[in-house]
Amino acid sequence: MGADQQVSRSTASVFIKDVLVWRRGLSDLLLSDGKISAFDPDPKTIPDNAVIVDGKGQVLLPGLVEAHTHMDKTLLGMGWHPNSAGPLFIDKIDNERRIRREIGIDPRKQSEKQLRLSITKGSTHFRTHVDVDTECGLAGIEGLLATREAYRHMMDMEIVAFPQSGLMIRPGTYELLDAALHMGADVVGGLDPCAIDRAPKEHLDLIFGLSERHGKPVDIHLHEPAELGAFSMELIIERTRALGMQGHVTISHAFCLGMTDRSYARHLMSQLAQEKIAIMTHGAPSRPVPPIAECYEFGITVCSGSDGIRDSWGPYGNGDMLERAMILGLRNNFRRDDEVEMGLDACTYGGAKVMKSTKYGLDVGCDADLVMMPAKAIAHAVVERPANRTVFKKGSIVAKSGVIVEGPS
Amino acid sequence: MGADQQVSRSTASVFIKDVLVWRRGLSDLLLSDGKISAFDPDPKTIPDNAVIVDGKGQVLLPGLVEAHTHMDKTLLGMGWHPNSAGPLFIDKIDNERRIRREIGIDPRKQSEKQLRLSITKGSTHFRTHVDVDTECGLAGIEGLLATREAYRHMMDMEIVAFPQSGLMIRPGTYELLDAALHMGADVVGGLDPCAIDRAPKEHLDLIFGLSERHGKPVDIHLHEPAELGAFSMELIIERTRALGMQGHVTISHAFCLGMTDRSYARHLMSQLAQEKIAIMTHGAPSRPVPPIAECYEFGITVCSGSDGIRDSWGPYGNGDMLERAMILGLRNNFRRDDEVEMGLDACTYGGAKVMKSTKYGLDVGCDADLVMMPAKAIAHAVVERPANRTVFKKGSIVAKSGVIVEGPS
Repeated sequence: MGADQQVSRSTASVFIKDVLVWRRGLSDLLLSDGKISAFDPDPKTIPDNAVIVDGKGQVLLPGLVEAHTHMDKTLLGMGWHPNSAGPLFIDKIDNERRIRREIGIDPRKQSEKQLRLSITKGSTHFRTHVDVDTECGLAGIEGLLATREAYRHMMDMEIVAFPQSGLMIRPGTYELLDAALHMGADVVGGLDPCAIDRAPKEHLDLIFGLSERHGKPVDIHLHEPAELGAFSMELIIERTRALGMQGHVTISHAFCLGMTDRSYARHLMSQLAQEKIAIMTHGAPSRPVPPIAECYEFGITVCSGSDGIRDSWGPYGNGDMLERAMILGLRNNFRRDDEVEMGLDACTYGGAKVMKSTKYGLDVGCDADLVMMPAKAIAHAVVERPANRTVFKKGSIVAKSGVIVEGPS
Repeated sequence: MGADQQVSRSTASVFIKDVLVWRRGLSDLLLSDGKISAFDPDPKTIPDNAVIVDGKGQVLLPGLVEAHTHMDKTLLGMGWHPNSAGPLFIDKIDNERRIRREIGIDPRKQSEKQLRLSITKGSTHFRTHVDVDTECGLAGIEGLLATREAYRHMMDMEIVAFPQSGLMIRPGTYELLDAALHMGADVVGGLDPCAIDRAPKEHLDLIFGLSERHGKPVDIHLHEPAELGAFSMELIIERTRALGMQGHVTISHAFCLGMTDRSYARHLMSQLAQEKIAIMTHGAPSRPVPPIAECYEFGITVCSGSDGIRDSWGPYGNGDMLERAMILGLRNNFRRDDEVEMGLDACTYGGAKVMKSTKYGLDVGCDADLVMMPAKAIAHAVVERPANRTVFKKGSIVAKSGVIVEGPS
């Protein structure tokens, strides 16, 4: 039997002893062939060559799920660029294209930087929205496809072809989205059909048309507030129902669900639940946001993400989905342990469900995608955000104490 | 000349070279007799025995100011206590007294733990609200007076005598507050005169009466929302004006300033500015909060704090006022560098002004209370929150890389 540091991509079994497994309690577990093969295994079943990891009572979570980010355009590691965008949403879109021209952003390199940072924080699953527009074309998609290929042994990734600069207002974008989906993008993205494209019916018909033709799910950024966002949400719900796309649609941000008219918001939530439309919230402290506890009551799948990290939109973010769970908790006034864990659920199981990762979780037979950290309770891990994390992907340690254990293959 | 680690309480001068000084730029500075004695000094004026600290381009800020916390009741280091308080404010007050009875909290020991943690994060100035009620009596005040005495060489502290369980509804509390102020508490605390005490006129008359009699300032917790909070705020403004207490009153939380009726909120802000009443906001992501940029426009002094850290009220908090500046930024939708710096201003200069620390700042003659950290810009320091900070109090290093350099005297 070997020491911790010998765990690497191999067929060796791993025996993790003495960990506080979420929703299970103090346990030992055996990982074999990249999967969780047993909890509290009979000692006779542990192979002689199994690598032993002594958890010493640490918390064990399933790998964190970064279900909404923009890896193609982070400025991580590119020096500090003072943010000077104007106050409007469209100002930020225009500012971004300007910055991209001025400083040059290599999506392949930048996405790798963010991905490595996020893996050290314990994320094992990613859905990243990648800009597709008439200026950058498919460069972002190409960059992300290359990064995904280089790191496919360390994580799972879905790439969303995302018309950040608008679809109807930028002729040529539709064809680029179509090409991106042919190249390997997994999800059709969309953006504020009223506020940006000024043509909600047309925008959504094109997006859902691409989805139908490519057999790929939809994930639409919907920042539109209150009654305007609710109108766009109704149009999305109608199309999901008409096309039988239940379980294949995500609405990101969905700020309108935080609107003042709670009876209307609850009506929308009941419709979302019925059509199995998932919600992504990053718990923006400065905006009305979907109330997570109410979404759970309705049975809506809720996932979360860092959104942009250190980019032209804003300076914040570090890729830590435990910190995101804390922000969700702060935003939703979660104080009790079970509430804090609801926020964490969105940063783990909720995202995995949106990504249709059927082998995700802490049960026998699940992929051994895990993150372990020193904490006395699950909620404690969220508020403490320990730096010293051990991250497993399919049974192999891929990061430890903030450092990637293996390079790209 | 010596190395970094030799800087300790002594009369030696310290020469800090190559630091990015906030609002000044890359500079060297000389500290003598615990004060900033020069920027970019003539080399001939640097004493031979000066200790040299090579900043290597790090960011240099004035010491962070924790202007609102509750050090007497943190549960830091006491194991994990799952939070189970009910949803109402009064539930949390009652739950807290129950927990205090059940697990026993030693204000002397607990305040020391939080204080040490905060000092490692770079805070040099503290205003802590200390519970005074008919159950715990003056034990909290005694504990904090002892902690302050033990650490007086490492920080400045103001103690607020705080009627957390109410004043009018708990006969005997007034006399305890009076005794606390005699013992050495610096500030008269108050709490939600309508919502908790149900007798706003009587509550405020007692509080302002104590203030007048002891010649000590007032800091009132005002959680009351919207028009109810606005009514209490008007009563506070009226008394400040009538008693000539301009510059001696702080309203903590002031959630009502985030209310929907913006013209009423702006009327209140103009009154606050006129009476020189300061506002403390911790930027609660789940509540309406005072809009910081608008408060600055009106010329209102804004300070900030961690509020309760890891206590029976909630599980969050780590004493990091840089993280607080980040939360203020997220809550106030600050994206531009100058906006992010406004949040940091509340966590530094704003708090120092409330504490009347006239020797605070980054000018020649100011106390050399400083925090240095690796970052490329001021806003970068806020979003990155580097762990590796060097903290100076009156020219001596008191903490480095998360570790206190000196014990209590």
